[in-house]
Amino acid sequence: MIKISIIGGGGNVGYHLAAILLKSKNIELIEVYNRTLDKIQYLKNVTSVTTNLNQLKEADIYIICVADDAISEVSEKLNFNNKLIVHTSGSVAMKELKCKANKGVFYLLQSFSKDKKIDFFNIPICIEATSKPDLKLLENLAKTISKNCYSINSEQRKKLHVAAVFVNNFVNHLYFIGNQICEENNIPFEILHPIIKETASKIETLTPFDAQTGPAKRNDKKTLKKHEAMLTKNQKEIYKLLTQSIYNTYGKKL
Amino acid sequence: MIKISIIGGGGNVGYHLAAILLKSKNIELIEVYNRTLDKIQYLKNVTSVTTNLNQLKEADIYIICVADDAISEVSEKLNFNNKLIVHTSGSVAMKELKCKANKGVFYLLQSFSKDKKIDFFNIPICIEATSKPDLKLLENLAKTISKNCYSINSEQRKKLHVAAVFVNNFVNHLYFIGNQICEENNIPFEILHPIIKETASKIETLTPFDAQTGPAKRNDKKTLKKHEAMLTKNQKEIYKLLTQSIYNTYGKKL
Repeated sequence: MIKISIIGGGGNVGYHLAAILLKSKNIELIEVYNRTLDKIQYLKNVTSVTTNLNQLKEADIYIICVADDAISEVSEKLNFNNKLIVHTSGSVAMKELKCKANKGVFYLLQSFSKDKKIDFFNIPICIEATSKPDLKLLENLAKTISKNCYSINSEQRKKLHVAAVFVNNFVNHLYFIGNQICEENNIPFEILHPIIKETASKIETLTPFDAQTGPAKRNDKKTLKKHEAMLTKNQKEIYKLLTQSIYNTYGKKL
Repeated sequence: MIKISIIGGGGNVGYHLAAILLKSKNIELIEVYNRTLDKIQYLKNVTSVTTNLNQLKEADIYIICVADDAISEVSEKLNFNNKLIVHTSGSVAMKELKCKANKGVFYLLQSFSKDKKIDFFNIPICIEATSKPDLKLLENLAKTISKNCYSINSEQRKKLHVAAVFVNNFVNHLYFIGNQICEENNIPFEILHPIIKETASKIETLTPFDAQTGPAKRNDKKTLKKHEAMLTKNQKEIYKLLTQSIYNTYGKKL
């Protein structure tokens, strides 16, 4: 039985993590801390809830789920020695943990919203620790909730985080622009749902390099010109830059 | 029974369309034309194949699946009066058909590769015709192969095509950049597959506007700076422009 304490149970990651840990075998969620009680009140019948960092119960792993900026400060207040303290951030190095205890990272690579149910079993969990036994402990924890566990160091995690911004945040913004164009022309956006899904599923069998299609890759100047003429200033800037980047990718290699 | 003739069966669209029409009830694929026989030879046991545009068999609908640039020229050579002639292009207006016969469009909004099996039932089919009975005929045809049929005029179709470039071609290029960052840092790209899938499926229940997350939306300058410092010149240009565009989207509306 691994005893877990969640530090910052009121945020999105803490919320989803508490839910899955309560359902997991071989895991005991012994306590959830949050700065204010209102957001974790709903847990009080199933585990201990607290707003006092100085009187936390003894656990095997303390999982810090607070905002990136608060990780150092919160970790400094955790007065344990032979315990494992991990944070869950993609962009914060392990060494930013300012505790005396053993350090590690337990990064769930998914975009969480409280309103949306999460399929934990497929979420990649990127783990890091200062010692091999701690890495093993994190691996055991990861494997109880997901089938995808990776050992990723702080340097790699930083890069992974920026890569995720491209394939998640920026991709969503392109969906937004697609939606914008549809709305302006009385076209239901749902027409684009199947091609969006197909584009996302294609790269599970082809590399993105091989999956690329379209006028930019073909350098089909006539279509590119037609398209640019239809766009707003901001849309056109993005269109031109991405077209150029695609063209350079293939122009150089073809 | 609707009698169909495919003009340009050697390309990706013609290939997939022939396959699905041969399987469909109430449809008779009576002939497939292509400029050269080699690419349609495989069909000769199940339908008539030809390279002669002047001796085509009589069909109810002639579906032109040739390259955009060749649509006008090919349509001019089709000497029919009371037949319906349609093209399948997203970016070519219906009036570009230069035939005496009735005109229409049958645009399948999906990205086709010969190697990849297509789930036709979910592909949106955008139809247009000069007369109501022809629109009805195209609707009947569309409904035998897909559950998603939309009446979309040439102006809308043009816009839809450029919107598809954003959500398909450009999105795939962002996947390529994500892959590039992973490769440079010895990170398996598959770690990003689940977040890619989740991002694509989120917008079926949320608008892209509501689904947006990340440092650009939060205007989290510290993270934005850290990210920029890790990128190549080209990646950074894209990062900055999309970040600015996201920021403007929410800065104005929040």
